[in-house]
Amino acid sequence: MKKVAVIKLAQKLSQFSDLWSPKIVAELNDSYIKLAKLKGEYVWHKHENEDEMFFVISGDLTIELRDTTLSLQPGDIVVIPKGVEHKPVAPSEVHVMLIEPKTTLSTGDSANTEDKKPTHGEWI
Amino acid sequence: MKKVAVIKLAQKLSQFSDLWSPKIVAELNDSYIKLAKLKGEYVWHKHENEDEMFFVISGDLTIELRDTTLSLQPGDIVVIPKGVEHKPVAPSEVHVMLIEPKTTLSTGDSANTEDKKPTHGEWI
Repeated sequence: MKKVAVIKLAQKLSQFSDLWSPKIVAELNDSYIKLAKLKGEYVWHKHENEDEMFFVISGDLTIELRDTTLSLQPGDIVVIPKGVEHKPVAPSEVHVMLIEPKTTLSTGDSANTEDKKPTHGEWI
Repeated sequence: MKKVAVIKLAQKLSQFSDLWSPKIVAELNDSYIKLAKLKGEYVWHKHENEDEMFFVISGDLTIELRDTTLSLQPGDIVVIPKGVEHKPVAPSEVHVMLIEPKTTLSTGDSANTEDKKPTHGEWI
């Protein structure tokens, strides 16, 4: 039987400081639960086959879409549906929990072949 | 294209008061994101085929397992792996976010037939 352990998000967040580098804290069926610290602007991108959930733990997060801009505060979530271009922007540091399918790669689907290690992010 | 909207958990929680009755607030790939208010003791149960995630928003939640007891506070998460018997206990009211596969039924897998409407919880 798998060990069942409580995961304290604040404690996990204290273990890293690099930005835009999601860390895996748990697996949930076919998804990973990740934590990330964001600051500044990310690039426009989309995930062709997977919805992505953002939950804001601290800070204010802006997510630009092509037709609107979303403003998230702590306690807010948003699901970016597959195929929707988005650009996260964090004027100040933001801490988020992400839930993404295990197949989601930061490098894009083209890297998801058996001879190439996917870059999901590391476990902490 | 699906509408993309920010979901404010506190606002959604203000819309219901019934206990042990998860409400769906979003879908994420093959899962639903749900909110629930818990108070008192639930029954021992397990989900044969699905892991279940609890994220504690407010209050203190105890989850009894057969071999240990987990204590969760706000900002803590736990993933109960499929097949693991668990019994949530909330001495005072607790608000949680749950993430469960769309196939998870409160009535158990035996009800998951096409001629019977599954009881996932209602949308709010």
